Amino acid sequence: MSTLPHITVCDATLRDGSHAYSHQITLDQVRAYATASEAAGFSFLEVGHGNGLGASSLQVGESLVPEGEMLRAAKACLKNTKLSVHVIPGFATIKREIVNALENGVELFRIGCHCTEADVSQRHISYVRSAGHEAWGVLMMSHMAPADVLLEESKKMQSYGAQGIVLMDSAGAYFPKDVTEKIGLLAEKLEVPVGFHAHDNLGLSIANSLAALEAGAKIIDGTAKGFGAGAGNAPLELLAAVLKQRGYKNSLDLYKALDVAALATKLFAGSLPDSNDITIVSGLAGVFSGFAKPVQRAAKQLGVDPRDIFFELGRRQVVGGQEDLILEVADELARRTSTNPNFYPIS
Amino acid sequence: MSTLPHITVCDATLRDGSHAYSHQITLDQVRAYATASEAAGFSFLEVGHGNGLGASSLQVGESLVPEGEMLRAAKACLKNTKLSVHVIPGFATIKREIVNALENGVELFRIGCHCTEADVSQRHISYVRSAGHEAWGVLMMSHMAPADVLLEESKKMQSYGAQGIVLMDSAGAYFPKDVTEKIGLLAEKLEVPVGFHAHDNLGLSIANSLAALEAGAKIIDGTAKGFGAGAGNAPLELLAAVLKQRGYKNSLDLYKALDVAALATKLFAGSLPDSNDITIVSGLAGVFSGFAKPVQRAAKQLGVDPRDIFFELGRRQVVGGQEDLILEVADELARRTSTNPNFYPIS
Repeated sequence: MSTLPHITVCDATLRDGSHAYSHQITLDQVRAYATASEAAGFSFLEVGHGNGLGASSLQVGESLVPEGEMLRAAKACLKNTKLSVHVIPGFATIKREIVNALENGVELFRIGCHCTEADVSQRHISYVRSAGHEAWGVLMMSHMAPADVLLEESKKMQSYGAQGIVLMDSAGAYFPKDVTEKIGLLAEKLEVPVGFHAHDNLGLSIANSLAALEAGAKIIDGTAKGFGAGAGNAPLELLAAVLKQRGYKNSLDLYKALDVAALATKLFAGSLPDSNDITIVSGLAGVFSGFAKPVQRAAKQLGVDPRDIFFELGRRQVVGGQEDLILEVADELARRTSTNPNFYPIS
Repeated sequence: MSTLPHITVCDATLRDGSHAYSHQITLDQVRAYATASEAAGFSFLEVGHGNGLGASSLQVGESLVPEGEMLRAAKACLKNTKLSVHVIPGFATIKREIVNALENGVELFRIGCHCTEADVSQRHISYVRSAGHEAWGVLMMSHMAPADVLLEESKKMQSYGAQGIVLMDSAGAYFPKDVTEKIGLLAEKLEVPVGFHAHDNLGLSIANSLAALEAGAKIIDGTAKGFGAGAGNAPLELLAAVLKQRGYKNSLDLYKALDVAALATKLFAGSLPDSNDITIVSGLAGVFSGFAKPVQRAAKQLGVDPRDIFFELGRRQVVGGQEDLILEVADELARRTSTNPNFYPIS
């Protein structure tokens, strides 16, 4: 009946959820979840460390289980659902992590970078394509660049061989009108399908996903119960409901997609995302909510409001890797507050 | 700086939240919450039984605290925030509940009825206005009527003296485009301000509230942490963030609005709303999620999927008070399923 396009739904639960679980996902959890994801009919299941292939480290957190084992465990449970990985060049090398992932049966490599640095994805995308496998380009923190820049960066990835482009709203800062503008331009101008990866900091993950679909996106990311960084992702069970209600064709069994959420509730109890003042303010400030812990430490240490720190970091347009700015900002705020008690950065 | 209108934000936490707390809210909770709501700057605080004034009963659930005491306790904590009540004629009589509420300092009466039955609100609205107090009309389950019918019903309430009209999405079934159409028409054609009361069954409460604002709504309802029936309401802390980011003038202190959510998290721990398959399906089916418990009982009793019951109830357009249909539907499904194992109402 529907004249709407077929939508590819990507299940990122076992990758973005890793952030929310301090990368301690077990093989039993991988197997139970992957089996349910396959049954629900998701097109791809992304598995691995929150920061992707090769990221497990003292610096960003060590995975409980080596990634090769995780990938093989998931792969063994999948049949129609394809195994995918998140890849950030820098963490993931071609010779080691990509080659190993190919051996472990990964079928899609989603190569990500900061939204204005597409050129760092060239070698990885080219390699995966030359090896005969599927590669997409992923632009992270994409709220930080205007639509024309995102188009330019996407075109680079497309020229490297990317067979899909995904915009990530890593900070959960988009409003639906932003999605409409950016996804609309990309969907119109690119030759490959366009996708959107939402976070729920402002409670808009489902609305933004819907806006993406209406603007021409053919790929949507989500996680069961929103299991993921900060305020979490677009909940897959709600995406399944919305796709159903709006008549978008897709490969999901609605009831089994709802069951996946119930399973995630059990498997990851106590670690499912919850909105709080820090997740909301990080969305308003456009700062990745992975900054939450160091910001809260600095706020306590220097006696300032962590929310003020987030807003000031947002003004400075910080991105992941610039955590050293947190103490500098906190210190500056502490001195400003003490000389002027009415300082209130958001007024 | 903003050229956008001033928005009236109504805090329904101590009324809609009553549903989620089996009407067991204590006077200490009322006092603590009302004090925080006043500090955050909400325009109105709605207090009372989930079904409004006079609804405490064996049939729909008894309140722990008599409503007069609740109202007086809240009133004593309020200064700029005005005390309001939800009123459903049938539960609330003029002579007893409305007269008592006036004596207890209620400043706004929000008179509600099913969205096609505005005429039952006439006597209550007229009485409150003739007593020199403020009355709004509230159309509940408003997803069930088309825009032109809602306009007609709203005009009746306006003619009775209603000084505002609120559309409630009681089942959490709206999509933003529905809000745009219905609120847009009412905002254009009515002489009084129009409001929207969202529920989050499909994860769209904030997007629908935003769509309402963009379509001309001047009144928005929410509850702290979404504390309310079913999947909960539009979380006030997210509304505060979105109003801030989009530049709508309002009376809120953003940080204190975020603090209200943190307080609600403590006060109502364990009873805050959570999305699950039943809340999602009730949104898809357009059935008030208050049906959840009897539906689950009937499903268990007759061995059918409670989700199938919700979809069938939705098809029959049931409204509150028609709970007797649940067993009939469950029984029919049980017989249909047994003769045709492939029966699947939503395919």
